[in-house]
Amino acid sequence: VTIHELDTPALVIDLDIMERNLARVASYAKEHSLRLRPHTKTHKSPEIGRRQLDLGAAGLTVAKTTEGEVMLNSGTPDLLIAYPVVGPKKVARAVELAHRTYVTVALDSFECARTLSEAAQAAGVGIGVLVEFDAGLRRAGVPPEDVLPLVKSVSSLPNILWEGLAFYPGHIKALDDTGRVQLSALQSLVPRLVESLEKEGLPPRIVSGGSTPLLWQSHLVPGLNEIRPGTYVFNDRNTLRMGACAMEDCAATIHATVVTAQNGRAMIDGGSKTFSSDGSTAPDAEGYGEVLDAPGARFHRMNEEHGYLDTAQCDRTLKVGDRVRVLMNHVCTSVNLQERIYGVRGETVEEIFEVEGRGKLQ
Amino acid sequence: VTIHELDTPALVIDLDIMERNLARVASYAKEHSLRLRPHTKTHKSPEIGRRQLDLGAAGLTVAKTTEGEVMLNSGTPDLLIAYPVVGPKKVARAVELAHRTYVTVALDSFECARTLSEAAQAAGVGIGVLVEFDAGLRRAGVPPEDVLPLVKSVSSLPNILWEGLAFYPGHIKALDDTGRVQLSALQSLVPRLVESLEKEGLPPRIVSGGSTPLLWQSHLVPGLNEIRPGTYVFNDRNTLRMGACAMEDCAATIHATVVTAQNGRAMIDGGSKTFSSDGSTAPDAEGYGEVLDAPGARFHRMNEEHGYLDTAQCDRTLKVGDRVRVLMNHVCTSVNLQERIYGVRGETVEEIFEVEGRGKLQ
Repeated sequence: VTIHELDTPALVIDLDIMERNLARVASYAKEHSLRLRPHTKTHKSPEIGRRQLDLGAAGLTVAKTTEGEVMLNSGTPDLLIAYPVVGPKKVARAVELAHRTYVTVALDSFECARTLSEAAQAAGVGIGVLVEFDAGLRRAGVPPEDVLPLVKSVSSLPNILWEGLAFYPGHIKALDDTGRVQLSALQSLVPRLVESLEKEGLPPRIVSGGSTPLLWQSHLVPGLNEIRPGTYVFNDRNTLRMGACAMEDCAATIHATVVTAQNGRAMIDGGSKTFSSDGSTAPDAEGYGEVLDAPGARFHRMNEEHGYLDTAQCDRTLKVGDRVRVLMNHVCTSVNLQERIYGVRGETVEEIFEVEGRGKLQ
Repeated sequence: VTIHELDTPALVIDLDIMERNLARVASYAKEHSLRLRPHTKTHKSPEIGRRQLDLGAAGLTVAKTTEGEVMLNSGTPDLLIAYPVVGPKKVARAVELAHRTYVTVALDSFECARTLSEAAQAAGVGIGVLVEFDAGLRRAGVPPEDVLPLVKSVSSLPNILWEGLAFYPGHIKALDDTGRVQLSALQSLVPRLVESLEKEGLPPRIVSGGSTPLLWQSHLVPGLNEIRPGTYVFNDRNTLRMGACAMEDCAATIHATVVTAQNGRAMIDGGSKTFSSDGSTAPDAEGYGEVLDAPGARFHRMNEEHGYLDTAQCDRTLKVGDRVRVLMNHVCTSVNLQERIYGVRGETVEEIFEVEGRGKLQ
């Protein structure tokens, strides 16, 4: 089967690019002695997870216990749930997972750790814990000054193995004059926290950070010894526009068909239920994607199944039945809408990856 | 099982409200002799489709052939694909569907009709066609002046049964001083088109319009004789804010759990992979939903699995483990992210609807 025979809309991955992306990050991690636990939220495919492990990843990261259950099929010996596990059903699932692989949970409240400890005790398993601190995004994570007290209380809980710290630097996207991500805040905060723990006899074994935007600067943060990037496997328009990858590193596009064409405009057969509604995070990029085969076409609006192209400034005349490839703003939310990902080499569809972890809300 | 035992995030439907919404629109259609072909893109559940049929719907509407295959399980005798069917695989699927139920396709190009005709001839089936015109949204649909020539050419194609016209008035949302949707443009355009066709001996049997925003004004458009609303089954914050329903008509909420709480802010366990990233369409409403159990909390930002609540102005102190119900901006894109919908009566989970049509991109 060739890409021209695929029905649309289809999420197509260039396998050469994906493999290069995977290998490059694996080498970077090895070179800098960083543990790599890729976040699988981007691909949600155990098969791709297995390749990340084959290239030397120490484990895999998920956001949900339900995703973790799917990701067991990769054979991973180690699973990080990078999200507080709150509520009796989720705690029960985390403990169940801990019977099958080594599970670590990143959390930011004693309450969360306490319920995990109780359930782990009852089941006779151990669960790893990373204490998450807020590196400035104001999302999850305790303020830096609360790290030490939380570590102290968590590390003494039965059946909890306190492993270290986690943070999410995904907001640190701005480039300074030298083209480097602004790191100075992390470069002082992380070693300060590590030192304060060491002083109390609680040296962290793991300090986990490193999202895709910050990926290539991870070795510049003293004390950081693990990265868990997700998006790097495919990259997307937002990653490109924030300068964290080049166009030739973008593996994923949506192949779409023109379903209606009028003077100066055309519709493609994908909208917010194909691309997701995620906008551009770059100030210099508008709309919902880059139409690669029709330069000048502006993908300026979407409904659920309609993608609106303004073709007034487009070199190419789009006709009903024409196909275009679109680089999406955010690949993670788009993958989550797909049942499968088509892996191609040149024009041949070589592999189909089932998105086994899509949805999985409970 | 009660709602308190459901794992979160969960999309919960109040069955009393849903049933009232279904019955009210069924009566309205009956009262005004309007054919009702509800758009199933909102619920994507054959079981809910079956209830719409039981209440008198003439058929069901889908956006994709793949959704149509799923919706056959409702037992529908009539299926409208309200989207141009373009490309050999989709055409083949439409023809296959036409062996199993009466299929009509809304389209806006001769090219689309011609390929359907050829495939229908080869298979020995007939396929209904509605010619879509653009009522001002500039999405799909030919300009009004092109309706007659397209109807003439389409209606003479073998194995094509030209049924009439379709349009989508979803953009007509503004209320005038009397609280009525601005209808004047449609009230002159639709009868003018019908008359021009009648003059040529091509009277349309069906004139199909009527999205949820325009629902209750459908009988005021002369010539319109079919409605195909979707959102009305559940309604959502955008429907509410545009004045097309009341709060007591909103059947769907996301039940979420607070997973982290810091001074003045909290995170819930649902973000863009639960709610979708669809923003508010009302100028007076910001953010990603209404937090019903924590008045004053602003749901101002999302990441994939994180919902950011600003609780500085909130009356209630949110703690880790607390549960909240959130009225989402756009229920159709949120349902599409779910594996199942929990139907509750009071506090009891009475039914679980599988979202069998989620995804279905090819």
